[in-house]
Amino acid sequence: MPKVKNKTATKKRKNKDSKPHARARRAVTKHAAPQAQFVPWHSIPLEELNPLLQRQFVVGQEIMLARVLLKKGCVVPEHSHHNEQVTYILDGALKFWIDGKEIVVHSGEVLCIPAHMPHKAEALEDTVDLDVFNPPRADWINKTDQYLRGQR
Amino acid sequence: MPKVKNKTATKKRKNKDSKPHARARRAVTKHAAPQAQFVPWHSIPLEELNPLLQRQFVVGQEIMLARVLLKKGCVVPEHSHHNEQVTYILDGALKFWIDGKEIVVHSGEVLCIPAHMPHKAEALEDTVDLDVFNPPRADWINKTDQYLRGQR
Repeated sequence: MPKVKNKTATKKRKNKDSKPHARARRAVTKHAAPQAQFVPWHSIPLEELNPLLQRQFVVGQEIMLARVLLKKGCVVPEHSHHNEQVTYILDGALKFWIDGKEIVVHSGEVLCIPAHMPHKAEALEDTVDLDVFNPPRADWINKTDQYLRGQR
Repeated sequence: MPKVKNKTATKKRKNKDSKPHARARRAVTKHAAPQAQFVPWHSIPLEELNPLLQRQFVVGQEIMLARVLLKKGCVVPEHSHHNEQVTYILDGALKFWIDGKEIVVHSGEVLCIPAHMPHKAEALEDTVDLDVFNPPRADWINKTDQYLRGQR
């Protein structure tokens, strides 16, 4: 039975490939029927962006969930993005400069950062930060987030 | 320079008001300039949906972040919604029935549930569950989530 299925699939793919825009159609079909994803955090390698900053993330369709580990003194330089951000500090504390204010977000506290709002942060302690983005951060996925890399 | 900018903006607004649908356009503009929100979880009352289920949530623009507390044995009946869901178990364990499979999600593990995918869950232990939704769950905000209420 699985073999028959595979054969049919191969045939379908061949037919599609012979028509115009076949690749685009397949991409749309894929997008329209996403799978459930089970992801233990320990199965995702921690990416080291700089000696004070590590990160791992899970990407759904329109949601990205990231665990960001910041050592005390880590500074995330001022930046902004079109992605809405919700930050939940699980452990430690981050000081934010945002919207003309300074806000310290401690463990058990949440900061909602609207799309396009510039913000800067500094870890006042070793911190475990959960960041939610909508849509997912393409610059994080593509590793073009230079503002976070190479910092001392 | 800023004054000139403001004048231009005022002129534009006046022009827009004289055209049809000006209010709708202004509403869209308002929606596009949300504020940063600082929210300690302890400042949000826990809503008791049934004796085994409590919940609190923060609503951004397109993201809802919810802390859901389930006592051991709590069953969330099968349901589905157009909102994408990402579930991160902070403590305890939830057993899910989803997409023809049974998946136990323990502390430190994540389950991404695509929009419209039916799922049921049962707490195998007292559990702290963090749920992210896009867009926010209107039925939770409006308290029309009868599938969660009145359970023994």
